[in-house]
Parts: sequence; C-alpha cells; structure tokens
Amino acid sequence: MDLKTHLAEQKDIVDSRITELAQGWLKSDSRNGALRAAMGYSLTAGGKRIRPILAMAAYRGCGGGDSRAWRAAVALELIHTYTLIHDDLPSMDDDDFRRGKPTCHRKYGVRTATLAGSSMLLAAFEELACCCSELALSDQVSDRVLASVASAVGGGGVIGGQVVDLESERREIGRDTLHYIHSHKTAALLRVSCTLGGMLAAADERQLAALASYGEDIGLAFQIVDDLLDVEGDSAQLGKTAGADQARGKATFPTLYGLAESRKLAAEAVKRACTVLGRHKLDPDGVLAALARFILERSS
Amino acid sequence: MDLKTHLAEQKDIVDSRITELAQGWLKSDSRNGALRAAMGYSLTAGGKRIRPILAMAAYRGCGGGDSRAWRAAVALELIHTYTLIHDDLPSMDDDDFRRGKPTCHRKYGVRTATLAGSSMLLAAFEELACCCSELALSDQVSDRVLASVASAVGGGGVIGGQVVDLESERREIGRDTLHYIHSHKTAALLRVSCTLGGMLAAADERQLAALASYGEDIGLAFQIVDDLLDVEGDSAQLGKTAGADQARGKATFPTLYGLAESRKLAAEAVKRACTVLGRHKLDPDGVLAALARFILERSS
Repeated sequence: MDLKTHLAEQKDIVDSRITELAQGWLKSDSRNGALRAAMGYSLTAGGKRIRPILAMAAYRGCGGGDSRAWRAAVALELIHTYTLIHDDLPSMDDDDFRRGKPTCHRKYGVRTATLAGSSMLLAAFEELACCCSELALSDQVSDRVLASVASAVGGGGVIGGQVVDLESERREIGRDTLHYIHSHKTAALLRVSCTLGGMLAAADERQLAALASYGEDIGLAFQIVDDLLDVEGDSAQLGKTAGADQARGKATFPTLYGLAESRKLAAEAVKRACTVLGRHKLDPDGVLAALARFILERSS
Repeated sequence: MDLKTHLAEQKDIVDSRITELAQGWLKSDSRNGALRAAMGYSLTAGGKRIRPILAMAAYRGCGGGDSRAWRAAVALELIHTYTLIHDDLPSMDDDDFRRGKPTCHRKYGVRTATLAGSSMLLAAFEELACCCSELALSDQVSDRVLASVASAVGGGGVIGGQVVDLESERREIGRDTLHYIHSHKTAALLRVSCTLGGMLAAADERQLAALASYGEDIGLAFQIVDDLLDVEGDSAQLGKTAGADQARGKATFPTLYGLAESRKLAAEAVKRACTVLGRHKLDPDGVLAALARFILERSS
C-alpha cells in the first residue's frame, strides 16, 4: 500500500466533508455570520486530518464498512480544531500564528474565537450523536461513544493536560509530569479516535484495549516528534514559530531526555504500537502501522 | 400543591447531587486541583436550579418515574453554569459578581475559568450519555437527547444568541433582533430542558412539541422578568448589579416595549404556556404551571 496516496485520498474526503459542514453553517443562520465565518476559517485552515483518518482505519481494521461512519470521524477534527482555537487564546498559549495563518482570535477577536471554539465542540457532539443514530448502533454503544469522547476531552483528558501544561511553564518539572501532560493533552484525543473507530465497528473489549494502547503510544510519539521539530524544525515548514517551547520556558522531551534519547523513546513507542496491532490482527491492510511510522517520520 | 416546599425539596436534590459530583471531581485527579476547585466553586455558588427541576417535572408529566433520570436533569445545570462562567469573562460581559460572589475568572483567573467552563460542558455530555445508558433508553432516543442538547447550546442556540447579544451592545436594534437574542440565549436551554424530560419518558411528538412551546414561552417570560428586575430590582437581592443592562447599552424589553407592555408580554407568555399544558394534559400535579407562575413572580 502506498501510504502517501492513501493519506491524500482520506484527507480529501475529510476536507470535502468539512467544506460541506462549514458551508451549511454559513447558510443556516444569517444572524451570526462572524461566528460561522470564524468556525469555517479555523476548520478549513489545513491540517493533516490525522484523527478522522485514524478513526476510519481503526473502524475498518475491526471490520466496519459503512461510509456513514465518516460523520463521527470528522467530528474528531471539529474537536481537535476547538482545542487549537482555545489553546491559542491570549489567556492560554497566546499564539499569533497557526498553520502559517493568523490564529482565530487574531483574525476575529477573542470573544468570537472563544465562542467559535465552544460552538465547534458542540457541533462535534451533535455530529457524533447524529452519526450514531444513522448507523443505528446497538443499545448502549452510542452512549459509550459519546461518554468516551466527552471524557477524553474534559478535565480528566485534554483539558486536564492543558491545565497542568500551562501551570508548568517556567517551572522545573519531572518526567512523570511531562508524561502526564502529554498523555492527557495530546494522546487522549488520538487514543479515543482509535477506540471510537473500534466502537462504531462493534469491536470487543480486547480489541478496544489494543486500540487504546496503540493510540496512547502513537500519541507519545506524536508529542516527542512535535518537541523535536520545535528544536530542529523550520518555521516556514511548520507553519508556526520554531523554538516557541523554549521561548515559553516549556519543559519538553528534548529538555528532560536529550535529543538522542527522545528520538529513541519515540521510535520505541511506534514499535510497541505496531506490535500490538499485529498481535490482535487489527490492521489487515497495514494502514495503522503505516500511520504510526508516518507520525515518527513527519517533518511538519 | 405547595410550590415553595416542592421547589425547595427539588432544589435540595439537585444541590446534593451537585455536591457529590464536585467532590468526585476533586478526588479524581490530584494534578489539576485549581480546575476542579473552579468548577466546584461556580457549580455550588447557588442558583434556583430551574432547569433540572423543569426537566424532572416534564419527565413526570409524561409518565416517567425513574429517579436515575436526575442524572441527565442535573447535566442541564452543568451546562447552564458553563454558559454563566463564559458569559462573565472579560471578553464577553466582563462581570465581576455573580450571585453575590466574585465571578469564576475574578477568583481563579481567565485561563482557569475558561477551561473550567469547557470542562463543565464536557462533564455534562458525559453525564447525559451515562444517564441514557443507565436508563437503557430505546435505540435512537439517547442519540436524539444528545443531539438536541448539543444543538440547543451551540451556534444555532445559546451561543448564537450570545453572539448577536454582544454584537448588539450600544446599537439600536429592533424587536425582532431582541426576540432572536432571547429565544436563543435564554429560551433554548429552558426549552430543551423540557423536551429532554419528555424524551427520557418516551413522550410522543405531539407531547414534545407542546413541551417545546411551553419552554419557549416560559423562556420569554423569564427574560422579560430578568430585564424588569434589572430596572426595578435591588442589587443585594439580585446578587448582581442592578442597572447593568443600561450601563452596558443593552436593548431590553423595557427599553423597546416600555415597562407596562413588557409586564403584559410576560404575563401573556405564561398564560399561553399554561394553556398548552392543559390542552395536552402534561401537568397532572400542576408543577409545570406553578413553575411558570413562579418565573413570572420571582424577585431575584
């Protein structure tokens, strides 16, 4: 399988569904055009669309074959975009650029950006619930899907990680805190993207645990590579300012483990992720393993 | 039925469940204590708990009798509290006091307040999904519950109303815009509180439409009374600054309709709400009608 072609095809599907959603929002209500425009702006600003692609790969790996599942997968990208909009706010990371473009609040103001982020989060839950309904999932499964996603994003997941991350700026932290931050801030959403795909395909508990373990490991690799790119990368290619972590006094994998050890940790995580997949036969066409390697080797 | 006693009993149930939730959050994760504390602070700051009480009254009115439904009803209070925390932020209404206490961001900072609000919203969806699962609702009903609530709060509901409200400050607006704002910002959540109760009790479409109409009308009355109290009320009793609307240059029902006409509009809305209930026999013990009258006659 040629991963590059596959990823490009899958990304096109996500992008076209996102364009459709954003156009629908704009048409739905002439009164709050700025809100809808801000939502569309951030959602169509690019991105690798890793989370929906992961979810669909896990869905297929567990035997799912209904293309209507894309609707739930794309909801994960809405959630991811919500986290980016709010993370960039002046009271959070205070970032001016994201993917080479002004951040949402730089373009639309803090007020509209805050509301656009929350509105995106709510749209994601609406999409998730509608998708579960369309797929006519068996009793309890859709409740579990919704509860898992809410839990992964909330105070015990992404938001909890963001809090500890912000509290740790310009402080010395230990490796356990670093792992806590990234297991929550980055890995939680990647992990639930994988298990969501499994749940939609009625995977059993053993398969769901394997998908969670795979998601946790690629989340760790993803974050380490992010930290490495911040040190070694090129601002233009990254679409954001390289060296931002250091400027902000953030502890990162390179600062706590060194460059060589960080690279080794990331490679080991990806290896573990691929081993779990193989053991549970969750990746017949090799897409999930290829995605894990892609995360390791990416340069932006 | 003595409404005062009934409301006090129902409020006690909500309050004790909320205390339990907040204590559970504090215990769940020692790492982000400030987030959990901020969530608990705003959630236990008082309030009439109208939304969960309405939901349970509608639930019983449609024949529901399972006390586990409280879990979904209380989720509405989490959502309401999320809207209050974010509405008070400096980039929104910039309020210093709420219910006689410093607002969340005045006590915990903008960053923590923003994250605590979002985390509360996500906790609400988790509670809703868990409640639907516990009640073992028939296929599709729980998806509809989740989608309706997300839709009522998002860009087509509460948030949409908030956007237009903020955009309208210090501008001349017409009556249609005033109605748009309050139908979305205030009524949407009250309306979905009523229909949520109905859905949990497997109400039919006719009953749901009646509950929505009742919710819309009491939402209108609620907002008009709020505006009137801002003009005529007492800051100490309100727990917030009376006259705030005028200071902020907000168009209100009294400014666009005058005091007498506003009072008449509110009374008519409550009358309509009670008529709908009677026509559909949705209020055997009279709680919903009593609640509507309570909303009209409240002084804080």
